[in-house]
Amino acid sequence: MLNVPRKVRQPAKHPALKKLGSRVRQLRQARGVSQEALADLTGIGRSYMSGIERGVRNCSVLHVLKLAKALSVQPGDLLSN
Amino acid sequence: MLNVPRKVRQPAKHPALKKLGSRVRQLRQARGVSQEALADLTGIGRSYMSGIERGVRNCSVLHVLKLAKALSVQPGDLLSN
Repeated sequence: MLNVPRKVRQPAKHPALKKLGSRVRQLRQARGVSQEALADLTGIGRSYMSGIERGVRNCSVLHVLKLAKALSVQPGDLLSN
Repeated sequence: MLNVPRKVRQPAKHPALKKLGSRVRQLRQARGVSQEALADLTGIGRSYMSGIERGVRNCSVLHVLKLAKALSVQPGDLLSN
């Protein structure tokens, strides 16, 4: 078989998405919650959640609101510049 | 020709999306900017912008950041519960 490189979803990381991702990770870890648990809690898929934390997913408003609620912060705390 | 009803994108309006939409509209009008001008300013499509203001679009984090910048508010001002 040919060794065809697998197509990997790896968009350019937008600085704002990286910041959102690190903030989510930081708040989640501060609460002692695993990434999988946060995914299940918010109803966000586990691999999608991983993409959010890595800053490669431009997630939606409703995702942000779910994350903020689960992490007990204001939505703006996840997005502020 | 048959009179086939046009498929209209009209998802259930989520309260949080309605709130975001009204806030964007309110801030835009307070600045005397047309919907088309705000769309062009942010690079968001005009019909998509209309959907955001009507609360039928679950737009992305990057859209929210562009809107906040164009309207000179903090992203959280558009999303706060």
